[in-house]
Amino acid sequence: MTGSLKLLDEHRCFGGVQRFYSHDSAAIGLPMRFSAFLPPRAAADRVPVLFFLAGLTCTEETFMVKAGAQRMAAQYGLMLVAADTSPRGAVIPGEDDDWDFGVGAGFYVDATQPPWRSHYRMESYVARELFDIVTTQLPGDAGRAGIFGHSMGGHGALVLAQRHRDQYRSVSAFSPIAAPSRCPWGRKAFAGYLGDDPDVWAGYDASQLMRQSRCPYPDGILIDQGLADPFLDEQLHPDDFAAACVSAQQPLTLRRHDGYDHGYYFVSTFVADHLAFHTERLRC
Amino acid sequence: MTGSLKLLDEHRCFGGVQRFYSHDSAAIGLPMRFSAFLPPRAAADRVPVLFFLAGLTCTEETFMVKAGAQRMAAQYGLMLVAADTSPRGAVIPGEDDDWDFGVGAGFYVDATQPPWRSHYRMESYVARELFDIVTTQLPGDAGRAGIFGHSMGGHGALVLAQRHRDQYRSVSAFSPIAAPSRCPWGRKAFAGYLGDDPDVWAGYDASQLMRQSRCPYPDGILIDQGLADPFLDEQLHPDDFAAACVSAQQPLTLRRHDGYDHGYYFVSTFVADHLAFHTERLRC
Repeated sequence: MTGSLKLLDEHRCFGGVQRFYSHDSAAIGLPMRFSAFLPPRAAADRVPVLFFLAGLTCTEETFMVKAGAQRMAAQYGLMLVAADTSPRGAVIPGEDDDWDFGVGAGFYVDATQPPWRSHYRMESYVARELFDIVTTQLPGDAGRAGIFGHSMGGHGALVLAQRHRDQYRSVSAFSPIAAPSRCPWGRKAFAGYLGDDPDVWAGYDASQLMRQSRCPYPDGILIDQGLADPFLDEQLHPDDFAAACVSAQQPLTLRRHDGYDHGYYFVSTFVADHLAFHTERLRC
Repeated sequence: MTGSLKLLDEHRCFGGVQRFYSHDSAAIGLPMRFSAFLPPRAAADRVPVLFFLAGLTCTEETFMVKAGAQRMAAQYGLMLVAADTSPRGAVIPGEDDDWDFGVGAGFYVDATQPPWRSHYRMESYVARELFDIVTTQLPGDAGRAGIFGHSMGGHGALVLAQRHRDQYRSVSAFSPIAAPSRCPWGRKAFAGYLGDDPDVWAGYDASQLMRQSRCPYPDGILIDQGLADPFLDEQLHPDDFAAACVSAQQPLTLRRHDGYDHGYYFVSTFVADHLAFHTERLRC
């Protein structure tokens, strides 16, 4: 079972409060950290909640420090929650050796392969345990939840939104790893965490999931992609996801931005658009 | 003389560009780094420029990553420039020992005491060399420059604005060390960099400078201060500065904010107000 929340830190911000929590995670079997921005309205009411999944090497702090999202979240009355990107302290030999696998690189899957499967269960953590915490112990409204993310976390958002359609009412992404089965980051992670079975990979590949789908998000999906992103050609493949959306009759707004790269200066530029997109879909 | 600028890094951001530069500094005698956000308008015109001075332990990157200021700067057509907080690589014994003196803690003074005086000349660096670079090699308009800062950098802004009144047309601060001669951080820094002469200290103390002044900024000064700031009582003394402003007939807006602390979640909450304040004063 989920241990009680420990408030590590809090800061008043835009009339609301930026908090950092730790708790003993049942899904992961280790302590986990997450961050939550509570808008002013959350002092009195349950509020819609938007989960952010970060990219490789990031933590639960990255988005809250760098994206500048709290301003609009305060205005919209939207709670923001950011997860960490992997278990920490699993003490698996080699888990710290690579920046794109292991610590900081959980890829939002439930690993099936030893030794990873004992702790690297980020799908269960994010989509079940963290969701429950935020909607029971914090004032997030379980009926008005959305998800978005950046890079590896964009992959996570597009995948978890499809695998848990009942739970997330809106989804968007910045520079997602949109077809992980066919890029080096994704293949390395999937082989390590999931083994060799292509059917298992397909279940965690946003484009393949969408190809087997029928318009899961009729109100649309939003993706922003910088065209000066050094990872675009080799790792991201947004066109695969766009093609899959066409075949699934899934409305997609894929915006390509000249000159923008992969980092948070890009994310911060367009984050207000994402918050507006989710708010529109979570308000009613 | 000032060496040529080396562009270390650039990122498109809010239609403008976030840049990081290094250069051989004549004032410091070592390479220095600074950051500059150029709004879209700077591609065609000279634009007003707002210098930001950061606090203890920060670098030229802190403000640009954490404050979320680029959004409004892009909209207002305002260039933002952030300096580093001290020389780096002076190789003075002990300069890395304390977080509140030496590296990361230059206090925006020109040191008079050995061994610091050979490199720790942050006033000359910020108010002369960096100002010249930004208004000659970059598209900052020398006739429309303002200055602001946070904590140690709030001290720096209030002091440099008074010592270089001809140069800065507007000044504001977040949680400034407003009376450094009477707080532990300030006394330690001033004793180390400036020696024991109280007259020299007075020349770098915002409140003492203001007391000897006559309304240097008739269009007003803006200060934001969090009331849950753990450094407020011992280190900051904004009331001293407010009293000095009264005696100097200097209009001051000192806003005290319930529940806000000393960090960038506080700064980011009110940074848009500061940009609006400066823009109003730099536009005409």
